[in-house]
Amino acid sequence: MDVKDFLSPDSSTVGASASDLDPAFEHDLDLYFLGPKSEKRAFLFEALHLVLNDHVFWRRNYWPKDPPAIGYSKANGPDASHFREIFFTELFSLVSDLKLDVPVFSPRYMAHMISETTLPSLVAYFATLLYNPNNVSSEASPVTIRHELEVGKQFARLFGFDDRTSFGHLTSGGTIANYESLWFHKAGRFLPLAIEMARRTHDGKTGQKGADALYEFLNVPLEDGEWLLNEFLSEGSDPEMRWALLEGSLISHIGDARFRRAVEEMFETPWIEPVVIVPKTAHYCWRRSAGLFGLGRDNYRKVDVDNEFRTSPKDLERVLTECAEERCPIIQIVFVVGTTEFGSIDQVGELADVRDRMAAKGTYAPIHVDGAYGGYFATMFRRGADPVNTAEPEDRWIGESFHSFSRVDSVTVDPHKAGYIPYGAGSIVIKHGYLKDLVAENAPYCLDRENATDEEAPRPQLGKFILEGSKPGAVAASVWFSHKLIPLDQDGYGRQLRILCDIAREFDSKVTSRRRVRSLYRPHTNIVCLIIEDESVRSLSSLNALTEHLAVRFGVRDVLSIQVYDYLVSRTTMATELPLVRQDEYLQSLEQDASSVAVLRLVFMNRWVADKEAGGKTYLDDFLDRLETAADEWIAQN
Amino acid sequence: MDVKDFLSPDSSTVGASASDLDPAFEHDLDLYFLGPKSEKRAFLFEALHLVLNDHVFWRRNYWPKDPPAIGYSKANGPDASHFREIFFTELFSLVSDLKLDVPVFSPRYMAHMISETTLPSLVAYFATLLYNPNNVSSEASPVTIRHELEVGKQFARLFGFDDRTSFGHLTSGGTIANYESLWFHKAGRFLPLAIEMARRTHDGKTGQKGADALYEFLNVPLEDGEWLLNEFLSEGSDPEMRWALLEGSLISHIGDARFRRAVEEMFETPWIEPVVIVPKTAHYCWRRSAGLFGLGRDNYRKVDVDNEFRTSPKDLERVLTECAEERCPIIQIVFVVGTTEFGSIDQVGELADVRDRMAAKGTYAPIHVDGAYGGYFATMFRRGADPVNTAEPEDRWIGESFHSFSRVDSVTVDPHKAGYIPYGAGSIVIKHGYLKDLVAENAPYCLDRENATDEEAPRPQLGKFILEGSKPGAVAASVWFSHKLIPLDQDGYGRQLRILCDIAREFDSKVTSRRRVRSLYRPHTNIVCLIIEDESVRSLSSLNALTEHLAVRFGVRDVLSIQVYDYLVSRTTMATELPLVRQDEYLQSLEQDASSVAVLRLVFMNRWVADKEAGGKTYLDDFLDRLETAADEWIAQN
Repeated sequence: MDVKDFLSPDSSTVGASASDLDPAFEHDLDLYFLGPKSEKRAFLFEALHLVLNDHVFWRRNYWPKDPPAIGYSKANGPDASHFREIFFTELFSLVSDLKLDVPVFSPRYMAHMISETTLPSLVAYFATLLYNPNNVSSEASPVTIRHELEVGKQFARLFGFDDRTSFGHLTSGGTIANYESLWFHKAGRFLPLAIEMARRTHDGKTGQKGADALYEFLNVPLEDGEWLLNEFLSEGSDPEMRWALLEGSLISHIGDARFRRAVEEMFETPWIEPVVIVPKTAHYCWRRSAGLFGLGRDNYRKVDVDNEFRTSPKDLERVLTECAEERCPIIQIVFVVGTTEFGSIDQVGELADVRDRMAAKGTYAPIHVDGAYGGYFATMFRRGADPVNTAEPEDRWIGESFHSFSRVDSVTVDPHKAGYIPYGAGSIVIKHGYLKDLVAENAPYCLDRENATDEEAPRPQLGKFILEGSKPGAVAASVWFSHKLIPLDQDGYGRQLRILCDIAREFDSKVTSRRRVRSLYRPHTNIVCLIIEDESVRSLSSLNALTEHLAVRFGVRDVLSIQVYDYLVSRTTMATELPLVRQDEYLQSLEQDASSVAVLRLVFMNRWVADKEAGGKTYLDDFLDRLETAADEWIAQN
Repeated sequence: MDVKDFLSPDSSTVGASASDLDPAFEHDLDLYFLGPKSEKRAFLFEALHLVLNDHVFWRRNYWPKDPPAIGYSKANGPDASHFREIFFTELFSLVSDLKLDVPVFSPRYMAHMISETTLPSLVAYFATLLYNPNNVSSEASPVTIRHELEVGKQFARLFGFDDRTSFGHLTSGGTIANYESLWFHKAGRFLPLAIEMARRTHDGKTGQKGADALYEFLNVPLEDGEWLLNEFLSEGSDPEMRWALLEGSLISHIGDARFRRAVEEMFETPWIEPVVIVPKTAHYCWRRSAGLFGLGRDNYRKVDVDNEFRTSPKDLERVLTECAEERCPIIQIVFVVGTTEFGSIDQVGELADVRDRMAAKGTYAPIHVDGAYGGYFATMFRRGADPVNTAEPEDRWIGESFHSFSRVDSVTVDPHKAGYIPYGAGSIVIKHGYLKDLVAENAPYCLDRENATDEEAPRPQLGKFILEGSKPGAVAASVWFSHKLIPLDQDGYGRQLRILCDIAREFDSKVTSRRRVRSLYRPHTNIVCLIIEDESVRSLSSLNALTEHLAVRFGVRDVLSIQVYDYLVSRTTMATELPLVRQDEYLQSLEQDASSVAVLRLVFMNRWVADKEAGGKTYLDDFLDRLETAADEWIAQN
């Protein structure tokens, strides 16, 4: 008998969703948000009222005869009045400050990957906040740790991993998730070599020396690691002792330097420093990881991107061939699905082909997809219960890219981005779940190895397998509850994101009919980048000055009130050596007097942006009109 | 003109607190919690109602003439009814599951470092959740990033650091904060050597070679690093170029392996692997950091603890002397203030004396205090506005230990532990704020260097100086608002924690008058560990069996409802080689047939535990009676 038997039946049903209740129900997500005019305020009030009352009386009903800790007169006397006065004075001050924030809830906000959160996530977050569980272990969170592990399995299935052998969980954000991918894969990449060293040291095994032999052990796929580990541990009668022997060769235990020395002594060949392969568009957290792991930024090999900011398969082949020639071990290759700046999608299948070809020739590397932003877009390609929601976007290659996730080894995805969940909700799924045992505090011969991170386990564990310690169960409940009501398929998130991608493309088309505005390339997702073309602008520096002016005009400013904003967009820059810039006729026609090109960046997270604003135009058209007016004014003055 | 000029005046007042409003107001924290019987429910309802309405109408008043995005009929029609039905069905299911959680709000819960959260933190968290700012940069959080940086300064002042030259901020938890201490200090420890190498390589400087010369550069105190850096950058006319030269020698850029090779070539002496010094009681996240940073667990040198789990100054001296003899660079020494298991407080002053003595002899190391748990207890020793709250605890050495924080180099403290803030709220303060520039994405010659993390700056930045990326502004507002109403001194947190320490000591005394129960040692903070003594128990294994029985009896079980629990405590184990066990007459009198001793562990986070329960006894007495009864039953049966 354990807690899971008492959980409400649905909560352990894998992939249960609102659509189970009535397949004919159309999942229009309009109803799942508070709305720019707080249209759903009565509903939100009611839901919050329910969870708060429910909690309040739960407290009161625990040992009902225990006297109140705060007497009535104290809770309502002069001290309480004074407390009230101070509290509300300060609270008014706090909420008046909060209202200096930016209006991310409005269709007028198109600046960053942020919008209002879903009602389910908001209500569940608040409900769980009252209980405040800690997902570090099931003793501190009998319920929400299961939510977290179940979400991990949902993502595993979404990406085509086996949800029994993979391991997924939530992190405070995508940056930590990306660090974890390196942490897990580093442990796994050097395991076969560690096993070989332990055998040669302790089992009297003899083996070949030299660079060739070493290179072979450095290129055993992660798929084979668990088998090798189990084989090693099961030799002899005492797995605990076997593990102790192995620890003396594990890089996580002896450290990089000692590992290198041990390898050099045993194989009598110099150790080549390991590298990580990232595209030029990779998020800055990857550069940071180089310092954190002690690998050094220079050991991060950069792969070129094409004119739509996608990692180039051809250049990946070049980098991998270079690594093969240098014989450096590759900890992992990173692809990006949904670049922060442009929302570009890597062609995962074609890139995985390159990896597989190189692996067949003896140079292996696991693939990590940084889908912090783009991961949720996989839901656009997953059938739900409702046959109406099946249309796929125009570009078939994007769907194929998501279907190829099953070929990679780990994926980061941030519920707090395209999942419309409150911060901080990141996550990672690793395909090879046994890697968690290599980094765990408890050695993997322990009995709990089999199911320690299964949400069906009597006492699921988490803290010992992850980089973080104490962590909010409220985040887990928030993501889980949002997924419960908004399925991870074309009925739910997929429908919403599909609409946003369509809006981005519609906007992209709309822009081509404009006098001055130009979209840089057909968007892969929901981000569009714009420049202004005018014959008076004859140099990159002049174009940049114009863009900067518009970025300030439509950017977050130091304002007394959000009323000042009509529309909000962001800006980014592209280095002039990027293919998009080099291949753009217009940009090339300008005087090349700057090393980067500034562009306006619009992120569509709010589907009502296609609706009509106060003046009767759509927000999109109204924005474009105002953008051109502002550009005209600048041009007239410059 | 910038946002900070518009912030409510108090919010930028350093150290402002409720006591400013009326110094005579007694900060009885009873009123600051919802209470075990939800005594403050009307107040909480009112506060939440205010922030929600306030937010709702803020939305409605942005471009009031924009039409609603969700039409009235849609928001209230048949689809909406269907949505309601699904939503509330699932919500009831969720909240019924949440109620399988443990009753941490009750004085009957004494198991872990968790309790209900403060009302200010709960209300501020919820209020900010509605706005959902992202503290990665001020563009995404004009307000709450200032809250975060202000909290950093509050902690700096609490620990005796200069709040202008130090750098403090929030993390998702203490584990990440501890990683950051290593990350910052590693960057700083090797800076003087990097500068020397850059000078020899690029400036034609000549210098001594050999182990002695190397050792000198490896032992420059962090205090001197900023001066050396500025001196190096200001030579010549182009700091940007100077920085580029330096980057080629920075360990974060070239990686550990290349750094080692460069040093060995230049100094013609072998590189000795760097170490980290931790006490035997250090939290497991330190072991994990060894794998993360590639340092290896074996390079973590362990310092003995005394019979109250305090790091031994004498043994620290031994370890430091060993390091000096081996000439290994020490990245940092970790002390623990508030061990997870026992709440023990390291004697920071005496330990810092050892460090200073060794530094005078040429072996330097910065000190990091892991005060994830204990950091807030510093407020017990800080005078507030109210002269009534001045009594200091009986043990003078504990106060001295906190006063010695000003001598260390960084401190971790978790608001989500003794700060009564929702998860996940950790934090770190580093004394040498310039270290953040070494790890930053932007090079330190940038103009924004001076004040980029000052909450008074026009556009404060955070993301580029920390390990995490996107992060919830709600946490920052939550901590900030709680500190606003509950000052970090004897009027606020100090008063609450003082009461809890007194309760722990009162309980400790009470136990001595009991037949069977024994406290292991006089508690340093609010954690008490118990064993049962009975003449029928003749071996450690028998004692452990009894303790395990009681730990299950009073532990978190798989229950259908919290009504089953009368009291909740936790358990921990001590290795038999620890001084406490070796010096304990009773434990030594038992047959030594186990390698560890299990003990019951009580953490007092709820001050009402000294009040009376339903039966008219105090919770403390009632628990002890039930504990003895349970022990008697076990003894009779075994």
